[in-house]
Amino acid sequence: MTSPVRVALLGCGTVGSDVVRLLHEQSADLAARIGAPLEIAGIAVRRVGRDRGDLPVDPALFTTDPLGLIKRDDVDIVVEVVGGIEPARGWLVEALRAGKSVVTANKALLAEDGATLHDAAAEGGADLYYEASVAGAIPLLRPLRESLHGDRINRVTGIVNGTTNFILSAMDATGAGFAEALEEATELGYAEADPTADVEGFDAAAKAAILASLAFHTRVTAADVHREGITEVTAADVASAKAMGCTIKLLCIAARNTDPAGRESVSVRVHPAMIPLTHPLASVGDAFNAVFVEAEAAGQLMFYGRGAGGAPTASAVLGDVVAVARNRLAGVHAASESAYADLAVRPMGEALTRYHISLDVADRPGVLEAVAGVFARHEVSIATVRQGPAGGGPAGRGEDAELVIVTHVAPDAALAATVRALRGLEIVRSVTSVLRVEGGA
Amino acid sequence: MTSPVRVALLGCGTVGSDVVRLLHEQSADLAARIGAPLEIAGIAVRRVGRDRGDLPVDPALFTTDPLGLIKRDDVDIVVEVVGGIEPARGWLVEALRAGKSVVTANKALLAEDGATLHDAAAEGGADLYYEASVAGAIPLLRPLRESLHGDRINRVTGIVNGTTNFILSAMDATGAGFAEALEEATELGYAEADPTADVEGFDAAAKAAILASLAFHTRVTAADVHREGITEVTAADVASAKAMGCTIKLLCIAARNTDPAGRESVSVRVHPAMIPLTHPLASVGDAFNAVFVEAEAAGQLMFYGRGAGGAPTASAVLGDVVAVARNRLAGVHAASESAYADLAVRPMGEALTRYHISLDVADRPGVLEAVAGVFARHEVSIATVRQGPAGGGPAGRGEDAELVIVTHVAPDAALAATVRALRGLEIVRSVTSVLRVEGGA
Repeated sequence: MTSPVRVALLGCGTVGSDVVRLLHEQSADLAARIGAPLEIAGIAVRRVGRDRGDLPVDPALFTTDPLGLIKRDDVDIVVEVVGGIEPARGWLVEALRAGKSVVTANKALLAEDGATLHDAAAEGGADLYYEASVAGAIPLLRPLRESLHGDRINRVTGIVNGTTNFILSAMDATGAGFAEALEEATELGYAEADPTADVEGFDAAAKAAILASLAFHTRVTAADVHREGITEVTAADVASAKAMGCTIKLLCIAARNTDPAGRESVSVRVHPAMIPLTHPLASVGDAFNAVFVEAEAAGQLMFYGRGAGGAPTASAVLGDVVAVARNRLAGVHAASESAYADLAVRPMGEALTRYHISLDVADRPGVLEAVAGVFARHEVSIATVRQGPAGGGPAGRGEDAELVIVTHVAPDAALAATVRALRGLEIVRSVTSVLRVEGGA
Repeated sequence: MTSPVRVALLGCGTVGSDVVRLLHEQSADLAARIGAPLEIAGIAVRRVGRDRGDLPVDPALFTTDPLGLIKRDDVDIVVEVVGGIEPARGWLVEALRAGKSVVTANKALLAEDGATLHDAAAEGGADLYYEASVAGAIPLLRPLRESLHGDRINRVTGIVNGTTNFILSAMDATGAGFAEALEEATELGYAEADPTADVEGFDAAAKAAILASLAFHTRVTAADVHREGITEVTAADVASAKAMGCTIKLLCIAARNTDPAGRESVSVRVHPAMIPLTHPLASVGDAFNAVFVEAEAAGQLMFYGRGAGGAPTASAVLGDVVAVARNRLAGVHAASESAYADLAVRPMGEALTRYHISLDVADRPGVLEAVAGVFARHEVSIATVRQGPAGGGPAGRGEDAELVIVTHVAPDAALAATVRALRGLEIVRSVTSVLRVEGGA
């Protein structure tokens, strides 16, 4: 039999433990698929002595010296499931430069400074795989960077954060407010004690940067991504969406834009938005993830599955490990980073979006004209207007009315300026809900 | 610049023309992604002189000699979009043995005799890619054979035939019968003049064989697949499904079974079945395809998109072309067929299924006991029984009643024998509907 391929594992938390378990349970299958057995050369952890239950691994493999482990001659592949920027970056650069292939789930690092890792991989002639960094178990990055590379991707729209999807699904199902739904998510273990990274959209923004880079062959970092979380989504917003036949999701959107002169650019953003119930993403509930891809020739595609959790993430990690192990045995490495298109990343103000705006207005002649005038002055075209009694209740309060306006697409800055101008109108009592609308016809 | 990678195209119908168009429109992007330009070396067709509209290709490239084209020294990759067993098999074997990589959409050939192609690829050291053969544009085969190879797939359930999905969706939406819905599909171009391959399940069975082979690392051919089409699905069946909160889909199902002694086998089948409206496959409408995968660690995954059509299929073909072109430039080839598991394929009678059975019975004491006795004698356990007036109408006919029975899982042979025995009971006036049930809790 061929000599074993040896793996250094950095980190042994939820995902790391499941990697160890799967390696153990599937060892015969993995060896058959690779053409050589996979062995764990060592596991770098913070505390060697910690009780790890019945983890099927020799305790002598644990070490507190990750760099020493990486540098060992008998290590072929480095698997990193620690997360965070440093010290992970230093470890992975060290491994890649030394020609050791890396499999990582570290979305924050890839989104913050993927270029450094890709450069180190090119320098060392090593593979850098990171399927687990976005949408957990869903085979997504490899289809984007391989299966669809004969096509032209125009737009990627994803639900890539399970915590916020759980919260929004709960708000939609029960009419609860954000705080109440967050509490439920925390109790059930879907939200961390400090939920900031999830509910403020940082996690989704990192994934958006990774997806956009692959879809558009362009380096996109987390700093390029416009980010809004879900903390300001209200029960009233959810009710507004329902009245429109929609639901609210935290979406990451990466879109290719072509200006009138034919110049291409991309916009990448994360924010809550209304989508029609008929859209395939609308039925993605609970903590599931899904990514909707629109390509020139392929048309609409969707990938759906579990976005987080130890076993699903470990599945994606091991899929990558098998691939790099095979490459190693064949003496080749995978295509490196593809950033040849190098498209400009446009700021949010230039992204084309649609708004759904609810207003409480004075119920008297001339109001609709005044409101419509504000849209016209900002060159925002109105798609639909619905007028009803204020508060959505039965008619008869007499003084106030509710206006619900949905726009056509316009630059986001023009839409935002329209909302600011509406707030300044004397006849507008209040702007009760502003939501972007996606996935429309 | 690196010298071009040259492609021989066999066939220039709907898919072939779109391959030519995409190669032309995306040539700069494809060259950047591959690292060398892609060129068409020749196109084998039946009639050279045919009017091909504005196809962006030199007419001198057309030839009626496919074998001559394949054998030319300046051909690196052979793309086959002709279909059928012969002469395609002879051409592809010739190409592969000569070390020329093959990209094909030919599901019938792969399902009938994939082994011959895989063996020729191994012999010639060439790549054999066939993403377009199943579920058109959806990146599915590569995720199955690469992304999930660190995991263990237990079950694949797919809607892989757009024509039948269109027909069943129409029956569900309008209450139409099969003949009427087929007529609509034909008028709209979703069904061919001779719809046999689609409505009798042959197309889906070929795809089921390909999916099962990849999912279970086992050679499965079309002959191993139990096949039932949708021609016998009635409007009454569709109504029965609705009453159960279900819809009817033509499913291809490939499942891993483990017997009490721990021996593993697979069952592969295509038949119409009821699935709950809450199942992700239930909302896959019109001519869309989707494949639902259940893996040990990854959990539930779904892949959704267009299963047919020129451009979607051409997208999948070109994705493969880019991959094999890159392999060629790198001087490597992809992992060959993985059939190491070599599991036994069990006959349909041993597959575990659930039945939904509607009976018109005499409305008198002892009937339920007699019916229940038939199930018990066949060791089939009943999950639910609903009794109502015959025909589903208002009560009061007095003499007849309707019994709707849903079973737990049992060997299909036992369920089929139960239905035969029910038909023989004097008190059973008729068995009005028999449908398998899938995707249940």
